[in-house]
Amino acid sequence: MDILIKNGTIITQNSKREITKADILIRENEIAEVKKSIKEKTEFKIDASDFIILPGLINMHTHVAMAILRGLGEDLLLQEWLNKKIWPAESKLTGKQIFDGTKIGTQEMLLSGVTSFNDMYIKELDQIAEATIKTGLRGFLSRGILDLISGRDSKSEWKEAIGFVEKWKKNKLITPVISCHSIYATSEEMLLKSKEYANKNKLKFHIHISETRKEIFDCLKKHRKRPVEYLDSLGLLDSNTILAHASWVTKREIRLVGKAKSTIVNCPISNLKLATGGICQIKEYWEEGANVTLGTDGPASNNSLNMFETMKLAALLQKHHYWKADAFSTQKILDAATLNAAKALGLNAGSIEKGKLADLVFLDARTPNLMPHYDLLSNLVYSAHPGNVKKVIVDGKIFLDA
Amino acid sequence: MDILIKNGTIITQNSKREITKADILIRENEIAEVKKSIKEKTEFKIDASDFIILPGLINMHTHVAMAILRGLGEDLLLQEWLNKKIWPAESKLTGKQIFDGTKIGTQEMLLSGVTSFNDMYIKELDQIAEATIKTGLRGFLSRGILDLISGRDSKSEWKEAIGFVEKWKKNKLITPVISCHSIYATSEEMLLKSKEYANKNKLKFHIHISETRKEIFDCLKKHRKRPVEYLDSLGLLDSNTILAHASWVTKREIRLVGKAKSTIVNCPISNLKLATGGICQIKEYWEEGANVTLGTDGPASNNSLNMFETMKLAALLQKHHYWKADAFSTQKILDAATLNAAKALGLNAGSIEKGKLADLVFLDARTPNLMPHYDLLSNLVYSAHPGNVKKVIVDGKIFLDA
Repeated sequence: MDILIKNGTIITQNSKREITKADILIRENEIAEVKKSIKEKTEFKIDASDFIILPGLINMHTHVAMAILRGLGEDLLLQEWLNKKIWPAESKLTGKQIFDGTKIGTQEMLLSGVTSFNDMYIKELDQIAEATIKTGLRGFLSRGILDLISGRDSKSEWKEAIGFVEKWKKNKLITPVISCHSIYATSEEMLLKSKEYANKNKLKFHIHISETRKEIFDCLKKHRKRPVEYLDSLGLLDSNTILAHASWVTKREIRLVGKAKSTIVNCPISNLKLATGGICQIKEYWEEGANVTLGTDGPASNNSLNMFETMKLAALLQKHHYWKADAFSTQKILDAATLNAAKALGLNAGSIEKGKLADLVFLDARTPNLMPHYDLLSNLVYSAHPGNVKKVIVDGKIFLDA
Repeated sequence: MDILIKNGTIITQNSKREITKADILIRENEIAEVKKSIKEKTEFKIDASDFIILPGLINMHTHVAMAILRGLGEDLLLQEWLNKKIWPAESKLTGKQIFDGTKIGTQEMLLSGVTSFNDMYIKELDQIAEATIKTGLRGFLSRGILDLISGRDSKSEWKEAIGFVEKWKKNKLITPVISCHSIYATSEEMLLKSKEYANKNKLKFHIHISETRKEIFDCLKKHRKRPVEYLDSLGLLDSNTILAHASWVTKREIRLVGKAKSTIVNCPISNLKLATGGICQIKEYWEEGANVTLGTDGPASNNSLNMFETMKLAALLQKHHYWKADAFSTQKILDAATLNAAKALGLNAGSIEKGKLADLVFLDARTPNLMPHYDLLSNLVYSAHPGNVKKVIVDGKIFLDA
């Protein structure tokens, strides 16, 4: 279906980062034109005079199916939470529950302006893919390989991860990703094999790294290297690698990530909630050339999938960490949640420009919490919430309305 | 108007902190009954089967009129932000703009489940009161006295503050409060006179304290005491005193606040945004007997008036600060935002019980981000956002609907 959107206030995220009052023409699933006064007969027309339009937000690290466990075992210490609550519950989760959890989580994301997400989970991947398609989001999905702790042989772990890739590699909304859970849950052999497979098949490689201090100490003991140094020594850092957390790192490790142009995913709320203690220094990662992006982490350790909250917190924690109110600009935050994320995933999105995929979010500009309009980026990063999202377009399809 | 609310899931905040499925009968502006199966003919009836009902949230520290300046001068260092942007803009604000700012801010609060707020501002207090009444919130309002920096004589400062009290002391929704801006902007003589007047007239006393390191160093130099010790030495700490921020303090100061049973208002987002560096140790304040409450601070240094966000961040920052995922429970957070705040203000609210004022908030329980329902307090503190608020009742009047 072709759609003409009239008179929106567009946060384009184009190369000049223009914010402009203009029209958008969507043909099928692509943005065909962005300019003033487009005259064109289309099947569908939206008067966007009262809306701020931005590129769909991209949640770069989550475990969406865990929405089914949201709120289970609150206010517990991390190990107790995992051992007594989450792991026993996860081991019993059925395919149906994983489908339902993914439905809840993807719907929550859609309602809050997220159009794509990068996910890692440990079982029932087909259910996650089916539920994502049902909601209508773009899912970058992976079976996280954890051969050291899964209790299964590494062959069957591998088969499941690769089987998922083969099955879904040609789907329009689903893009398979290769994930290794972490350096403590995945064997060195498997890390190397996974990255090799990813490179050969042009897939992204996703891993948790340097989330807790324990991981650092264990890695130093075992490899005489810090976790990011260890990944580097294995040749795992390049521009197709996505590092989740990376919040307990040295300046040398930040430089390694920057030099390799790898992507890091800052998950500020999860880090605070699990009391890991580390603050991901996205200011320094950015300065060193890393591709900085943002994620919510799973809904059981956040406990939301709210990217507005994550954008705000990511910015606030940089200010706090450096005792500098100008540590990290709103423009950088929005880049991290759109353009940088699209780049990390190899997705033709992240900005509102001719030729890009039609993934758009409409915020009600008249709502009190977005008034007045001195600085729309500031309003977006510091004042907006999911309740402001009134329409979402994913792949040219319209969801919600107001 | 009498209202019968049927089958709500009620987070009562009563002495047993019960969460129960029951009916609520409202007569005029009071809760007349909370129990199962109330049979009563009323003018208005609400089917609340799909709603979670909680006591109205109370924002304990803000400068609501500053909503008119939201987004002005983003990403600047604190002094530059104040000197170049906020102070020049504030000095030019007209009564009309302050009315409009208060309308925007109070509407934002109403839409996000806040039914009462404690405010301090420096001029046009009548406009703030009128706009608050127009929106329909309970405002605890004060003309913050800052005789050391206002450029006006202390007599006229005093006259304005007291004039406001006299004019509004009998209003149903407005309760005047006595505020001194801070120990660096208000003279010692005025601090003493203000607290004496507050005590004599049974008014609450509100002040900013220990927000920045500079304030601590200046106070140590001038008085050889830290800010809270200085207030204590003047006899200003008691259960009618409300301390905003108090985030750069020693354990001895925390004990002083606890012993006096004073109220502290944690404004976590503002502290991060202005990069003040301090984390208000509400865990320790609580343990020492202080009355812990929460505030957003002004919409120009947050930049929202979203108490859901503030509840979440307050909890997360305690976990982060102590590296303990169980540092501060969701129950304590909700108490801080309801019961403790009501106590601080002398307001007969903060829980859903017979005889309390009818200030209620309805959240849509079916929305994906509040599913599933393992732990409603966790959902409320960690997963909810203003978009989940579908109805609000203030003083027995219904606002919004869904």
